[in-house]
This record gives sequence, structure tokens and C-alpha cells, in this order.
Amino acid sequence: MSMNRRSFVKVAASTAALSAMPSFALAQQPLRFAAVGLGQISDIFMKSVSQSTKCKVTGLVSGHVAEKAPKYKSLYGVQDKSIYNYETFAEIAHDQNIDAVYIGLPNSMHAEYTIRAAKAGKHVLCEKPMAISSEECRAMIDACKKANVKLMIAYRVHYDPIWLKVKELARSGAIGEIQEFQGGFRANFKAGQWRLDRKFSGGGSLMDLGIYPLNAIRWIAEEEPASFAAQIATKIPDSRFASVEESIEFSLKMPSGVLASAGSSYGVDGDNDLTIYGSDGHLRISPAYGYQGVRFEGETKTGPIDETSKGVMPYQFTLEADHLADCILNKTEPWTSGDEGLKDLLAMEGIYKAAGTPIA
Amino acid sequence: MSMNRRSFVKVAASTAALSAMPSFALAQQPLRFAAVGLGQISDIFMKSVSQSTKCKVTGLVSGHVAEKAPKYKSLYGVQDKSIYNYETFAEIAHDQNIDAVYIGLPNSMHAEYTIRAAKAGKHVLCEKPMAISSEECRAMIDACKKANVKLMIAYRVHYDPIWLKVKELARSGAIGEIQEFQGGFRANFKAGQWRLDRKFSGGGSLMDLGIYPLNAIRWIAEEEPASFAAQIATKIPDSRFASVEESIEFSLKMPSGVLASAGSSYGVDGDNDLTIYGSDGHLRISPAYGYQGVRFEGETKTGPIDETSKGVMPYQFTLEADHLADCILNKTEPWTSGDEGLKDLLAMEGIYKAAGTPIA
Repeated sequence: MSMNRRSFVKVAASTAALSAMPSFALAQQPLRFAAVGLGQISDIFMKSVSQSTKCKVTGLVSGHVAEKAPKYKSLYGVQDKSIYNYETFAEIAHDQNIDAVYIGLPNSMHAEYTIRAAKAGKHVLCEKPMAISSEECRAMIDACKKANVKLMIAYRVHYDPIWLKVKELARSGAIGEIQEFQGGFRANFKAGQWRLDRKFSGGGSLMDLGIYPLNAIRWIAEEEPASFAAQIATKIPDSRFASVEESIEFSLKMPSGVLASAGSSYGVDGDNDLTIYGSDGHLRISPAYGYQGVRFEGETKTGPIDETSKGVMPYQFTLEADHLADCILNKTEPWTSGDEGLKDLLAMEGIYKAAGTPIA
Repeated sequence: MSMNRRSFVKVAASTAALSAMPSFALAQQPLRFAAVGLGQISDIFMKSVSQSTKCKVTGLVSGHVAEKAPKYKSLYGVQDKSIYNYETFAEIAHDQNIDAVYIGLPNSMHAEYTIRAAKAGKHVLCEKPMAISSEECRAMIDACKKANVKLMIAYRVHYDPIWLKVKELARSGAIGEIQEFQGGFRANFKAGQWRLDRKFSGGGSLMDLGIYPLNAIRWIAEEEPASFAAQIATKIPDSRFASVEESIEFSLKMPSGVLASAGSSYGVDGDNDLTIYGSDGHLRISPAYGYQGVRFEGETKTGPIDETSKGVMPYQFTLEADHLADCILNKTEPWTSGDEGLKDLLAMEGIYKAAGTPIA
């Protein structure tokens, strides 16, 4: 059992400058997670953690404890004293069975619960989008820095070996010089989800789906967009799209001249993909952002290529959680730190500004 | 042999209002074409016509007659008196062996030779893009209307049975309500082509390649874009892209709320495609704009679909030429009349204006 962080900090603070202190110097694995929010995505996350040797679910936080906690309590052996609601959440600070939180809440609650978790001395793995504004992202980064806890954004794609291979191929010159990207993520969402309510989501299909091609483009291009163009539309006169856009098409221009476009929709029985265009070939990933079955194919300088991930759902989540556990143990920054989440929010703000209207 | 058009008009003009006169009232098939410009695309067109029972190549027009005419003269049995250069082109008016011209010239010459052909009383089949400005398109439409000759733009995709099936499927409700389109056409162009010289091309990859997804979107949506967003980039600091853009990504928003995006590039070893997204399915055409092998696949309300054209190159050109022959015989307007070409130019002007810069 690792030294309790609060006691450690207390000791450390009395002997050295707190800001210079590495957090969890004595951290051990498994990393013990509390899931904050017990919706669909947390359900998947907890299942993935149960398949990990580096992580464990030891806490639950929900606004509907009576209704939602029992199932996970019995599935993962969570102790009653480590089950919290939003009112009692601050007490997590004293819970020595919890090292980190996984934030699977609606977007508009990410900042608040990340900051509260940081103040409680817990590391944070927060779902994407990181928050609903770049201002919130900055506050989250500051809070985690001050508390000397890790902040990681749950971009599972970055931890999937098949995506790492795609990135490696694209960056290695296998398709020549990278010139362009085109991608999309479109699905038909049913009414009644918090994602369709701007209060909770902060935006429409871009915030939840379009962020996938956006993030993949930024990640593989290794550049931040310098200019944006975008159009928003709501074709279906449907109460689903009263507060958020149904569809958006956007383009990004990188300082190097790399050009990218992508789109997303909540009103389409669609698909999800990304094509990377090089001077001497191209790679198309489709399906690109699913929980399993990610496939890429294309033409490289040395011929055609075609590969499908053999990973079984929810392997991406397990790899992602394990990465945070390793970062804490090895005192390294997560590949997808708060800075990565902030950059997506800055890009999405640029896209929405270019579109000129929040809903259309 | 049909009555000579000039003599017919002379007779007709003396007895009735010229504007009310149908041209070629006595037209018969085969329709006799002169190919104007003897480059690669005319080579393909003439080959396609040689496979038609409704059309025939009976004339040649070139700036390099000595060099380029002999091959086609012998291939298609063209008479010496029906071979013209640009100086002697006006004499085609007196050539009773020529009913129509196929304009396979650089874009900037389309307007001039269409108008000259109309004045010579010949029907016109003009390659895409129709011209390099909407103003030119309007002058071409006016000239052909005044001369009472047909004006057809060579959008071969509209005559390909597999594309007609895609359009029929998309419009029939097979994928629900059409919501979005995404497409592209990207290829790596070698230096030294007129397409890379703005004087001849009027623009970059949009004018030659991007026009394919643009036209397919407009055609299937059956709407004209109400607003545009676009970005242009030239990634490769290459003399190829001194006067035209390398890559462009653009989006179109239709009055109904249908949203579309597409891109094109001259610097990418890419591909060409179009996906039509509906509320209950999607159709992806890839490859989409090739001379053969067009394939579509997707999900419809009744299940998956996958079909590849069995047409053998240059079947699309034959069907296109035959359509003009039928329109003349039956006194109907071509499906892809000058108006269709004008609408693409208006859209491309909107796209370039949205991009804000002719080259970047």
C-alpha cells in the first residue's frame, strides 16, 4: 500500500517547496480509480480497468448512488465507504483507497469535478472533450499543477497500437510528404441524451464526434491549426437539435500548409473515418474511432497496405488507464495531458467562430 | 444525309421567326463531330465516338494540324477538307460534313471556341469546366441560344448507369433523408501541363478535380449552394504551384440545410470519392470519377449494398456523345446543358471568394 498522498504532502510541505515535489513519489500499482459519473462511458471504463493488472476500481461517485452504485459495487468489490454522491465528493480527499478519478460526466461538469478532484489530491483521467471552453481547460490545468496531480485526457485513440502504427507510417515518409487530411464521424443520435442539451454538452456534434477527426489530425500533423473555415447546418427540423447543431463541416490550415477538413453529424446513419494524403500515397482509416475493429488501408511507396486491429473492446480503455498508472509510477507526463485537451478546445472555438453561429 | 443546316435556316428565316425555329428539324444520326483540340481528352472522346452508332468523327481542329491530325485522319477516315486550324476554324460553317463540335481545349479557350462554333451553326459539346468565369458561361449560353444550336457540357458522370443508380437510390429514400455529402478528388500532377498555368486553366485543382465532387453534390442534392466556406493551401514550395492552388477544401450549404464538403489537390497521390449521408444510411462511391471501375457501397434501409460498374472505358464518353445526338434528333435539352456548367462556375466563384485568396 502506497503512502497516503495527503500525509506525504503534509510531510513534504514541511521540508521542501511544494511546487518542486513530485506527486506520489512512492506510488505503486495498481492505480486505484474512483469512477465519477456512472453512465455508459464509465461502465465501459470500469470494465476495461477490471481487465488490467495496473489499475483497479475502488471508488464510485454518482448523483444517483442508490440506483447506479450497487451493480458496480458488486462487480468490482467497491467498499461502501468509497461510494460518494456529489454532495459528499469532497470527502474523497480522506479516502486512502482512491488514488485517481475517472471523469465520465457530461462535458459541462468536467471542469468542476476535475478541479474538485485535484483539490482532494487525486490524479485525474478526464473524458473528452476536456471541458466546454478553453478557459475551463486552463483552470483545470492550473488546479492539477498546483495540487501536483496528473491530468490526463481520455483520448483512447492515442493508445491503440493500430493508430500508433498509422501515425508512425504517416510520419515515416511511407506516403511521402503529408499534404492533406479528410475525415468525419457521423451518427444518428436519439432524443433525450445530455449531448443534445447545450447546458451539458457545450455544443453539438463537433464537441462529441467531430473532436475525433480533429484530434487525430492535430496529433498526426504535429501542428496546431492557424486558420479555420466552417459551416453548421441543421437539416432535420427536430426538437433534438433545438440547442445544438446537427451537422458541421470544418477545415483547418496548418502553418506548414497542410490542409485538413472534417465533418460530424448527429442526424446521419453514417460512419467514421480519416484519410491521410501524402505526396506519394495515402492511408485511409475506416472505421477509425470505434471501440474495436479499427482498420487502415491505402497505398504507400512500397505498395498497398491493409490491416485491421485484433484488439477486443474495451482494450483501448485498458491501455489508456494503464498509461496513466505508468505515468504516475514513472513520474512522466501523460501523452494526452491537459494541454492536448486545451488545444482541441482552442481549435473547436476557432471552428465555431468561423461557422459564425452556434446553431443553424 | 440531313438537310444542310445553313440552307435550312435560310429557308426557315424567310418564312418564320428564326427564334421559334427548332434547329436541325431534319437531323439524322449519326451526329457528325469535329474534335476541337487534339489533346488527351479529345483522343479519348474520338475513341468513344468510334464505338457509337449514333455519332461519328468527321472533322478535326488543332493548332498543330501537321503534327496531330494525321493519326486521327487515318483512324477515323476524316477528309482533308474537314481538317481546320484555329485561323481557318470559321470556315467550318460551310462544312456540310460537320454537325457539332467537341471542345477539348484548355479551359480559357472554351468560351471563344464555343461561341465561334455557335456562330458557325454547329452544336457544341464542351468539356468541363465550361469556362473560367460565370460571365463567359453566360456569353456561351447566349451565343448558342441565338444560333439555335444545342450546348451541352461534358459531365460524363451524369450518363454513367452506375451513377444514375446511385442518384436514384439516394433520391428514393433508400438511405432516408439526404443530410450531408463529403467527397474529394486528389492526384499528383506533373509539371508542364496547361492545367498548372492560370492563363489556360483559370484556377487550380478545384477547376479540374474539385469540380467532380462539386458537380456530383449539386446534381444529387438538386439544390444550389446558398453559402460557402473554403481554405486554399500550397504545401509544396514547387514551381508547379506558382500560379494555381495546390489544394483546396470547401463546404457548401444548401437552402434546405443539406451540408456538403469536398476537397481537391494537385500534389497528392490520392483517390476520388463521394459519400452521401442520409438519416437512415449512407452510400460511398469510390472510386467515383474514373473512366471505369466506378463502385458504390453502403448501408441502406434494406441492408448493405455494393456494386461495381462493368462499363469499359471510354463507355461514359460514348453515352455522353449519344445523349447529344438524341437531344438533337428529339429536339430536347441536354441533361447537362450550359446552365449546368454555369451553376458550377457560380459555385466555384463562391468557393474561391470564400477562400479569400487565389493562391496560398
